[in-house]
Amino acid sequence: MANQNNTNQTRSQLPLDQIPADLVSLADIEHYSTQHLSPGVSAYINGGVADEICLRRNRLQWQCYFIEQRVLADCSAGHTRLELLGQALDHPFVLAPVAHQQLAHPDGEVATAIAAAALGGGMIVSQEADCIYSDVVTATDHLCWLQLYLTSNEQTNLTKAEIAARTGFQALVVTLDAPVNGIRNRLHRSGFQVPVSTNRLSGNGLDERQRKTPEQLAPGSSLVFQQLMTAAPNWQTMAAFVKHCPLPVIAKGVSHPDDAQRLVDLGCQALIMSNHGGRVLDESVTPLHALTRIRKSLAPDIPLLVDGGIRRGADAFIALAAGATAVLVGRPQVHSLAVAGAAGVARMLRILRDELEVTMSLAGCPTLASINSTCIYQSAREQQLC
Amino acid sequence: MANQNNTNQTRSQLPLDQIPADLVSLADIEHYSTQHLSPGVSAYINGGVADEICLRRNRLQWQCYFIEQRVLADCSAGHTRLELLGQALDHPFVLAPVAHQQLAHPDGEVATAIAAAALGGGMIVSQEADCIYSDVVTATDHLCWLQLYLTSNEQTNLTKAEIAARTGFQALVVTLDAPVNGIRNRLHRSGFQVPVSTNRLSGNGLDERQRKTPEQLAPGSSLVFQQLMTAAPNWQTMAAFVKHCPLPVIAKGVSHPDDAQRLVDLGCQALIMSNHGGRVLDESVTPLHALTRIRKSLAPDIPLLVDGGIRRGADAFIALAAGATAVLVGRPQVHSLAVAGAAGVARMLRILRDELEVTMSLAGCPTLASINSTCIYQSAREQQLC
Amino acid sequence: MANQNNTNQTRSQLPLDQIPADLVSLADIEHYSTQHLSPGVSAYINGGVADEICLRRNRLQWQCYFIEQRVLADCSAGHTRLELLGQALDHPFVLAPVAHQQLAHPDGEVATAIAAAALGGGMIVSQEADCIYSDVVTATDHLCWLQLYLTSNEQTNLTKAEIAARTGFQALVVTLDAPVNGIRNRLHRSGFQVPVSTNRLSGNGLDERQRKTPEQLAPGSSLVFQQLMTAAPNWQTMAAFVKHCPLPVIAKGVSHPDDAQRLVDLGCQALIMSNHGGRVLDESVTPLHALTRIRKSLAPDIPLLVDGGIRRGADAFIALAAGATAVLVGRPQVHSLAVAGAAGVARMLRILRDELEVTMSLAGCPTLASINSTCIYQSAREQQLC
Amino acid sequence: MANQNNTNQTRSQLPLDQIPADLVSLADIEHYSTQHLSPGVSAYINGGVADEICLRRNRLQWQCYFIEQRVLADCSAGHTRLELLGQALDHPFVLAPVAHQQLAHPDGEVATAIAAAALGGGMIVSQEADCIYSDVVTATDHLCWLQLYLTSNEQTNLTKAEIAARTGFQALVVTLDAPVNGIRNRLHRSGFQVPVSTNRLSGNGLDERQRKTPEQLAPGSSLVFQQLMTAAPNWQTMAAFVKHCPLPVIAKGVSHPDDAQRLVDLGCQALIMSNHGGRVLDESVTPLHALTRIRKSLAPDIPLLVDGGIRRGADAFIALAAGATAVLVGRPQVHSLAVAGAAGVARMLRILRDELEVTMSLAGCPTLASINSTCIYQSAREQQLC
Repeated sequence: MANQNNTNQTRSQLPLDQIPADLVSLADIEHYSTQHLSPGVSAYINGGVADEICLRRNRLQWQCYFIEQRVLADCSAGHTRLELLGQALDHPFVLAPVAHQQLAHPDGEVATAIAAAALGGGMIVSQEADCIYSDVVTATDHLCWLQLYLTSNEQTNLTKAEIAARTGFQALVVTLDAPVNGIRNRLHRSGFQVPVSTNRLSGNGLDERQRKTPEQLAPGSSLVFQQLMTAAPNWQTMAAFVKHCPLPVIAKGVSHPDDAQRLVDLGCQALIMSNHGGRVLDESVTPLHALTRIRKSLAPDIPLLVDGGIRRGADAFIALAAGATAVLVGRPQVHSLAVAGAAGVARMLRILRDELEVTMSLAGCPTLASINSTCIYQSAREQQLC
Repeated sequence: MANQNNTNQTRSQLPLDQIPADLVSLADIEHYSTQHLSPGVSAYINGGVADEICLRRNRLQWQCYFIEQRVLADCSAGHTRLELLGQALDHPFVLAPVAHQQLAHPDGEVATAIAAAALGGGMIVSQEADCIYSDVVTATDHLCWLQLYLTSNEQTNLTKAEIAARTGFQALVVTLDAPVNGIRNRLHRSGFQVPVSTNRLSGNGLDERQRKTPEQLAPGSSLVFQQLMTAAPNWQTMAAFVKHCPLPVIAKGVSHPDDAQRLVDLGCQALIMSNHGGRVLDESVTPLHALTRIRKSLAPDIPLLVDGGIRRGADAFIALAAGATAVLVGRPQVHSLAVAGAAGVARMLRILRDELEVTMSLAGCPTLASINSTCIYQSAREQQLC
Repeated sequence: MANQNNTNQTRSQLPLDQIPADLVSLADIEHYSTQHLSPGVSAYINGGVADEICLRRNRLQWQCYFIEQRVLADCSAGHTRLELLGQALDHPFVLAPVAHQQLAHPDGEVATAIAAAALGGGMIVSQEADCIYSDVVTATDHLCWLQLYLTSNEQTNLTKAEIAARTGFQALVVTLDAPVNGIRNRLHRSGFQVPVSTNRLSGNGLDERQRKTPEQLAPGSSLVFQQLMTAAPNWQTMAAFVKHCPLPVIAKGVSHPDDAQRLVDLGCQALIMSNHGGRVLDESVTPLHALTRIRKSLAPDIPLLVDGGIRRGADAFIALAAGATAVLVGRPQVHSLAVAGAAGVARMLRILRDELEVTMSLAGCPTLASINSTCIYQSAREQQLC
Repeated sequence: MANQNNTNQTRSQLPLDQIPADLVSLADIEHYSTQHLSPGVSAYINGGVADEICLRRNRLQWQCYFIEQRVLADCSAGHTRLELLGQALDHPFVLAPVAHQQLAHPDGEVATAIAAAALGGGMIVSQEADCIYSDVVTATDHLCWLQLYLTSNEQTNLTKAEIAARTGFQALVVTLDAPVNGIRNRLHRSGFQVPVSTNRLSGNGLDERQRKTPEQLAPGSSLVFQQLMTAAPNWQTMAAFVKHCPLPVIAKGVSHPDDAQRLVDLGCQALIMSNHGGRVLDESVTPLHALTRIRKSLAPDIPLLVDGGIRRGADAFIALAAGATAVLVGRPQVHSLAVAGAAGVARMLRILRDELEVTMSLAGCPTLASINSTCIYQSAREQQLC
């Protein structure tokens, strides 16, 4: 009887002690991870919104471009270092905020942070992390930001920001693209729900989202409009938040140039082009297209990060050539955690960095600063996806 | 022996008493419906014309556009209400005319009408409904229109209209795109024929189509041209009908701008872009393309409805952004009926409305009136399908 | 032992006595034909050149266009009749020259001719027919042309023409697109060779192709250039042939506008756009593209026929709208023969004609003359194939 | 135990004594070769970089163009001869440099050379050939060039060139597109390593690549940039090499017009457009696109060769029409070797030449010189791949 309740859990194997020799790409990591994730957790992590069209487009978008191979360029002094909002990073791969990482590995976000630190990279911790924020911050030694959802209550928002500042985060990433949950059919069909026991949000003092008691809706009212969207932040809330926040604010989930400009005008210090990993709006613009058009319309010194479907060093090269300052990597960190914990995440970052270095060498670009729009070539066919 | 005659029927299960938990989208409803429809009925309902190219295009056309996601828009006063030819509707999903609904469920069109009423939506009753018209009209409490086929006999046409007016329908939808039946190969291969016992058309007084005795054709004559098309209405018949009809007339199956203008000039009060659910002409223009070009050429106050392949709230959002006033939903109502009767149809409408509300929230559009062409973005690739 | 020699034959079933009820399209006929053709014969009939890319393109090309559906047009006086080089035809489907039809059915080309006559259509008899030409001519009562290959020997060519004239053919179709055989890998892999016993070419007096003794090639010479192409006709041969031929000459296999103009200048009375059923050059221009550009460049009164992948009445409608006077149908006649002999071919022609009539009615075109370029609509996507 | 070490080897069959009758295309050769290559060797030979996107594009690129079929052209004096850097060749198929051919057949590069000589074609011997260079040179009697990798050590480079000159090679092909190895995931997953016993590089005096002892990298240094790219040649090294090299130098792996011009300015006598068989940069520009744009920007008398995915005579025709002087054929020579040794390679070259002759005849081009850009037609759809 007890076993039946744990069916999902018992199907997943424990993380590996060592990385298999034939794990040589992020696709391999994803493939291996299927043995270490229960079907329900897999639906939660890997699923997207509705028909998952934009989930597929996120992956395909990087094929929009060819990379111009150049010969005989001197790359002997090459490196992948950069500075991002005052933080030095060894490479441009930043770990995207991914919630509930203990679903993939008991060490959760702390293991991820250890790997990020070991590889000289940055990490954005999810508001809905399973680990205690301060433990995660302690484990990192580079860029460490906290991702937050705002509500329509300005005071609650600022309280969150103050907790984050006290905990040691260097900046806040405000997710704007999910004021309501996407219609995640794969997850709903699986029946999976995040177990309460693994959710330690309350320990971080930010769990008002879960605690909210559903109000009684007036007849003819809409749960979406009159409840969820009424509780969601609007431009006024965001303006107040940016104005009073003790930390720099980065806006995540931006795809329209008008929104981008308005957020910068409010004081946001960087923007992240993202469609929430294909989990919110199935018809959403691809992040690469959003990046390209926002890069054209904004001042060139605003850092832009891009998130979605990055699985190769060459994907990051294309993002940088299209105007990104750095790139986010989401699901692969959970796949890596599930396969081999902190060692898995470190291997994943190592593969990406090696691939980026090889790509840069073949493109004749010794530094990130030398990567620009002349390094890629948009074919007529592939451009159509963007 | 008796069993053999009922082979098709015995394969289909009875409708469910409750909606399964993993039924979360219209695709799920279609999937479930396969257990509740015999192969013959399935070929009749789901089949299209010839190679079913346009059946597939109907579904794919909605992928022609990306939706512009906007952040921080205030949607707290949002709603999906609209007025259509003087009728108030809670949402823009109108049930398309679908014939012989008792093939899917013994309660037939009455069950569908109950669901439409429960969800605050409109319904267009097929001329070839299995239920008695007045029973269906009684079950609705919103928009309820009757769909008709005209013939070349003006008096017969007007008699139909008068019956419809007396029965309580508020308008007539004249289907113009099927003067001859499409070459529905899937149906023909199945051998399925609509059983006489389920066809109660005669009870509604409109069954001259079935009663017509085939005339003897002259040698060298064509069944298509000299019989079927001779019995079909032409511009003169239509003009007379619109002029004398006691109810407003809506033309269904229009795709060419010249036809659209001429119908409006005759007095039609709304038009429906449709290719008859992909059942008539396999090379037909997609309804979305027809909508886009007709919207450009007609006066902006003419209501335009669009029909074909709508399976998501986001599809409806795109239709509205492209100029539609409301959208029609066809096959999914029969799938829903087959799965769980009126409760199934209600669930289907609920899913569509929820998806539309979420999409509107993510696009920053609190009302249908705020949805316009700047809310969507046509990619080079996807535009090609249209 | 004897059985082993007949392996291919014993796998194929005898033709059917009646048409199955679920045979409702040319695709169904092709599907059924697989039971009545041995693998070797199937490779011979259905195979194309090399990777069969152009075989697939031939079928897909008709999807380049949408057909404009029009409503309420009066088609009561509609018909599909036309006149082609002075011959009256009931419909525009002409049977393309297909060799060795006794491989498909013992009655061979005579059965095909009977079906053509019964349905009021034309037939082009292959030079390499299995039946005696005069038997085929006798069985037809409409347009009946002979297809010929020319050689570099002007006298031999004229002798052929004179035999054809005496036999009763009304015109000659000279195939120009196969001076050498295409690299038909599927056929070569099958090992199939046309059996001598079924080849009655010698009875028709035109078998010099088979009788030619291979010459001894000089060292360093090429079989293709110095033997095959040396034996092939050139512009001078063709000019002489057209000049002295006692019958009208139609050129088949033309795709370049310059060649088309030059052939008309020589006196050819019609042209056939064809890539030899995808059997010669895998990279060949699609016949529909060739038709479109040649129609633009030639005088409008030159009849143009198009051949390749026509499997639906709507395909023919598109061809006519793009400028064709009539269309050729090749492989389906052999499939039909294999399934049910003359009755099969007649059914195939009946299906095509019915489909064309329905398409014309839906497009509001009562006659072939009313079909023009405004009746079709070339989408951006589909145009790319052409 | 011994058997287990040889698992890979024991799965592969010995080469055939005669060519099977159903081997009629290069695709057939590849298919047959799977029986004669162990999985590890197959991964080494057939694998590409990363996701093998560019491996697939290499094959698809030739479908970018239609070939204009012309009728009645006189090709009786046709031939495929050409002169390349002073060497007479019977046809334009040059064997690309492919390393370690003894993995496919014990006779290795000598067998390949014998086949090239028998068919009147050229061969480029890989620096990493398994056979002794002089044995290979002796076996050829046409164009025989040596492919080399340069290092950053100018003296070492020149020593190589002098050895090559003494051995009898007529020119040197310097590979520029692989200063670092591509990320060949398929190979890495297979675990295959080139066996030392089959590698006779040391016998040729050019094995410094293998002998290099890895240096100790400073902390924070990159293996890619500070070790591999530091050991790679740059523009200065290349200039010195071309200036002092006793043989003509051809640059291989060029895709950018600026690089092409600069190499010609340095004194390179020909260029090869190649992406290293899809083994280096998965996002690389297709060789056909590179050819097209470099042909436009360079002086017309610079010979350009193209390499990548050529499997049909028609592919070569398209390459020549797009501006190539000759084409390289890579993997098929190893497949052929594995199937039937020298006889296999000869058959492969024979098939290609026959296909090219047929294509030329159908396009009305009796000589390579008559093939030009008007002979091909780039469709909107297909152009998009380039």
